[in-house]
Amino acid sequence: MIGGAGYHSGRIPARSERAAMTERRDPINPTDDAARALARDLVAGARFAALGVLDPETGAPVVSRVALALDEGGCPVTLISDLAAHARALAADPRAGLLVGEPGAKGDPLTHPRMSIAVLAETVDRGGPDHARLRGLWLKRHPKAKLYVDFGDFRFVRLRPTGAALNGGFGRAYRLTPEDLAARDGRIGPP
Amino acid sequence: MIGGAGYHSGRIPARSERAAMTERRDPINPTDDAARALARDLVAGARFAALGVLDPETGAPVVSRVALALDEGGCPVTLISDLAAHARALAADPRAGLLVGEPGAKGDPLTHPRMSIAVLAETVDRGGPDHARLRGLWLKRHPKAKLYVDFGDFRFVRLRPTGAALNGGFGRAYRLTPEDLAARDGRIGPP
Repeated sequence: MIGGAGYHSGRIPARSERAAMTERRDPINPTDDAARALARDLVAGARFAALGVLDPETGAPVVSRVALALDEGGCPVTLISDLAAHARALAADPRAGLLVGEPGAKGDPLTHPRMSIAVLAETVDRGGPDHARLRGLWLKRHPKAKLYVDFGDFRFVRLRPTGAALNGGFGRAYRLTPEDLAARDGRIGPP
Repeated sequence: MIGGAGYHSGRIPARSERAAMTERRDPINPTDDAARALARDLVAGARFAALGVLDPETGAPVVSRVALALDEGGCPVTLISDLAAHARALAADPRAGLLVGEPGAKGDPLTHPRMSIAVLAETVDRGGPDHARLRGLWLKRHPKAKLYVDFGDFRFVRLRPTGAALNGGFGRAYRLTPEDLAARDGRIGPP
């Protein structure tokens, strides 16, 4: 299902645009290079995101805020404590949703570009070389995390995209594949 | 499950706090008036939120950004198009998750207070007096919405809280009931 209307925006919809949307009913544009570039910028620029997981007791969606970085391949990574509710949720069901593209304090957050990414969570073993590499990348982006990154209950979790819905503002809705999100100098998505 | 660790924060955890958390394992504080007041402020101040819904095809969580206002009783309300993916999702399963407490452009979003609210969505009939009242409240808070509020595919949706997890920063995690969220001059939650 993933995909927004691209419609619920502050910009004035021209009469012709409105007519086109009413006729089409599915306001999704064909994915082009500009959409791919915007999508990559949103992921690369996201120091934080909203993470949606499934409550393991009820199956209902629960949204919390997480910090974000990219691994060497451009895949989003977060650092979470085993004590956190979303860690327990991801252990029970690795399917999650990310929202990237935080609006600043100014302007209209509904006209600010944002992207809903469907992801699968993969917990990284604390003992392995992968953890050490991610620790280095993480501390470059989140220097204050040095205060807790080495606590035994914190683990890195890769969030592998399986699809995304980009909303760049009115009339600018796109669906993207993991390949669309793949950066020129790396990749996002399955290996 | 709803509840965050209150732990993943930029403030330096004192050694005694860390020891207390390791012993307790469940870093949730007893709910007090200060927590209730902070929770109400977060809801009242939220012009926007991240909304988590269930993909009707796969059951996976999907997070998007929505605009928010409060009804006369203090219950969060959003305005969404039938064309939006989250509208179709809520029609299939009204259980949703809200994240309120958007950080500004400055500072550390993980130390900024935020709250995960479990909600049930109730769509408001466009033809009724309830719609007209909400339309007035909505336009006070979101004046630009006058451009699309009267389009036939837009509807108000009440998001009735069933519980919440407040994260006010390190060591400040609380679980709240709909009654805790009830404002002095109104209410949030079931009637």
